[in-house]
Amino acid sequence: MPFECPVPIEDYETVTLAHGGGGKLTNRLIETLLVPALDNDVLRQLHDGAIVPSPGARLAFSTDGFVVRPPFFPGGDIGSLAVHGTVNDLAMCGARPRYLSLGFILEEGFPLRDLWRVVVSVREASDAAGVRIVAGDTKVVERGHGDGIYVHTTGLGEIVEGAEIAPSRAAPGDVVIVNGPIGDHGIAILSQREGFRFEAPDLVSDSAALWPVVERLIAACGPRVHVLRDATRGGVASVVNEIAAAARVGIVLVEGDIPVRESVRGGCEVLGLDPLYVANEGKFLAFVDPEASDAALAAIRAHPLGAGARAIGRVVDAHPGVVRLRSGFGGSRVVDMVSGEQLPRIC
Amino acid sequence: MPFECPVPIEDYETVTLAHGGGGKLTNRLIETLLVPALDNDVLRQLHDGAIVPSPGARLAFSTDGFVVRPPFFPGGDIGSLAVHGTVNDLAMCGARPRYLSLGFILEEGFPLRDLWRVVVSVREASDAAGVRIVAGDTKVVERGHGDGIYVHTTGLGEIVEGAEIAPSRAAPGDVVIVNGPIGDHGIAILSQREGFRFEAPDLVSDSAALWPVVERLIAACGPRVHVLRDATRGGVASVVNEIAAAARVGIVLVEGDIPVRESVRGGCEVLGLDPLYVANEGKFLAFVDPEASDAALAAIRAHPLGAGARAIGRVVDAHPGVVRLRSGFGGSRVVDMVSGEQLPRIC
Repeated sequence: MPFECPVPIEDYETVTLAHGGGGKLTNRLIETLLVPALDNDVLRQLHDGAIVPSPGARLAFSTDGFVVRPPFFPGGDIGSLAVHGTVNDLAMCGARPRYLSLGFILEEGFPLRDLWRVVVSVREASDAAGVRIVAGDTKVVERGHGDGIYVHTTGLGEIVEGAEIAPSRAAPGDVVIVNGPIGDHGIAILSQREGFRFEAPDLVSDSAALWPVVERLIAACGPRVHVLRDATRGGVASVVNEIAAAARVGIVLVEGDIPVRESVRGGCEVLGLDPLYVANEGKFLAFVDPEASDAALAAIRAHPLGAGARAIGRVVDAHPGVVRLRSGFGGSRVVDMVSGEQLPRIC
Repeated sequence: MPFECPVPIEDYETVTLAHGGGGKLTNRLIETLLVPALDNDVLRQLHDGAIVPSPGARLAFSTDGFVVRPPFFPGGDIGSLAVHGTVNDLAMCGARPRYLSLGFILEEGFPLRDLWRVVVSVREASDAAGVRIVAGDTKVVERGHGDGIYVHTTGLGEIVEGAEIAPSRAAPGDVVIVNGPIGDHGIAILSQREGFRFEAPDLVSDSAALWPVVERLIAACGPRVHVLRDATRGGVASVVNEIAAAARVGIVLVEGDIPVRESVRGGCEVLGLDPLYVANEGKFLAFVDPEASDAALAAIRAHPLGAGARAIGRVVDAHPGVVRLRSGFGGSRVVDMVSGEQLPRIC
C-alpha cells in the first residue's frame, strides 16, 4: 500500500456505534483514516457539501450501491469496485468522470484495518480513473444489521464533444462489439463463496475503469457510436434485452463469436450458469454504425482493456424487442432476461 | 397518498433477493413501483446515468446515507428525510438544489407496501423542494444483513449569486442565529424506540427542506452571511465546535436564548440528554456579519420555517477553537463535542 495510515491501527480496533455518532470519534475516523487516504483540496474544506466548478455544459450523473460479498476478492475489493462501477456508468453516457461522492454503511465490529484497506483501494482506483472523491458520509449500524461494509458512490462527469449515446439510438445494421471475454467478475466472486471454492490462476475479477477505452472509441467514431452499456448485474443477456426493448429492435448474437475464458466456462459448468448472465465489471457493449465498426474495433483494441474485443452480433429489423442467439449449428434460440436470483450480491 | 401504485400491492408481497438480481424482477420493481412514483423525463431515459444540463458555473455536490430506525416516525420517514438531509447540505453551501440520485439497500422480506410509501414520500419531498430524482439504484441483501431499508441520496445544486459560504469565514463579532427550537428530530425518533415510548402531540420531527429560508437570507445579506450549517447528527454543540475549529475562533452561546420546546426539554430530561447534542433535520445555524444580523433575522423569520428564529450567540476573539455556554447566572462552561454514541441511527 503506498498510503500509510498516519495513526497505527491495532488488530483489535473495530468500528463502534460511536464512530457514527457525529461527535469526537466520527471526527477522529474522518481525520485520521478517511481524509489522509482520500486527501485533496476540495475534500479538505470539510464542508457539508463540496463546491466544485462545473465540468461542462452537459453533465452525466450516476449512482450505485455496492454490497458485494466477500468484500475482498481476486482482482479487487468493494472499494475499487465502487469506483469502477460508477465511473463506468458515466463513461457509458460518453462522459469523462470528474467527481465522486463516497458513502459508507459500516457494521459495528468491522475491523478498522479492513476499512483502511478499502479506503486506500478507493484512492488508488480513483487516482487511476482520474476522478476525485469530493464528498463523503459514514453511517454505523448495530451488529447484525449490515454485513461489514456497504459502499455507495455517485459520480459526476463531463459529456465529451461528439458523444451522442442513448439506448434508443440502437438501429438495424448496428454491429455489437464487446471489449473482451465475459463472465470474469461473477465467477471470480463465486469462486470465493462458501461451498464454491474452486481455483484457477486466471479467475480474477475484470473490475476496471473503462473511460480510457471509451474515450478512444468516441474520438475515432463520434456519433456513429450509438449505444454504450457496461454488462454488470444480469450480464450481457440482460443488457442486450434492455436495449432491444428501449430501441424496439431485434438483436442477434453469434454464440461462437462471444469470448469466454476456459476457466470461466469451467466455473459456469460447475455452477450451472450461462456466462451470458454472469456479471462483468470491466466489459461493455458498443452498438456502432456498420460503416464505423472496423474503426471502432481498432480503437478499442488499441487499449489493453480492449485487447480481446470482438464483434459478437448485429441489430436487426426482425423480432423487435427480442434477442436471439445463433449457435454454431445454424440453429438459434431466444435469450431472455434472467428471471430469478441467479447471483445475489455480486456487486 | 396522491400517487396510486399502478399495480396493486398485496400485504404479503415483500422484497426478495431476485429483486436485486438485475433481471426481470428488478425491471418489474423499477417499472411498476419506482418509476411511476418518481417519474420525470430524465429518469424515463433509464440509462446507466442521467444526462442533465449543468445548472451553473459553480456546483455544490453532497452525499448522505440514511439508516434511521424506525424508518417511519412522527413528522416523516426515511424517504422524506433522505431528500431533506441532502438538499439541506446543498443549501448550506448556498446552493439551490437541482438534482438528486437515490440508492436503496433493501433487506429481503421488507414489505413492498412500505417501499411504495417511502418512494412516494421521496417524490413528495423532492417536488416540494424543487429537485428532481434523476438517477437511482437498488440492491437487495439477505435477511439479517440489513434493517428493512437504507437510503442513500446525493445532490447536485447551483450556487447562487452572492453566496460566499465557508466554515473558515466565521469571524469575531459574527452573530450566530438559529431558525427555531432545537432537538425536535432526535427526541421524536427516540420517542418511537422500544423502551422509550412517551408521547406529546408536538413531539414531531422538524425534517424539512431549508433552501427557501436560506434563499431569502442570501438575497437579503449576500456575502455578509459567512457560514451556514445544519445541526443534524451531533446537534448544535457538534456543529459550533466544528466551526470554531475550522475558523480558529471562539464561540459563546447564551443558554437562555436557545429555543427548546417544553416537550423536547421533558424528553431530554427523561433520557438524560442535553438538547444541544440532539439531532435536528430542519434547523440550521447562520453566522452573520453583525451589521447584517437584524436583516438576517428578519429574512429568516419571514418564512414559516424560520418563524422561531433567534440570535443565540457570538463569535469571539478569545479561546479560539473552544465553545462556551453562558448560563443565566452569569457563569459559563465549555461545550465540547459529543464523545460517545449518544444517539445511534437517528438519521
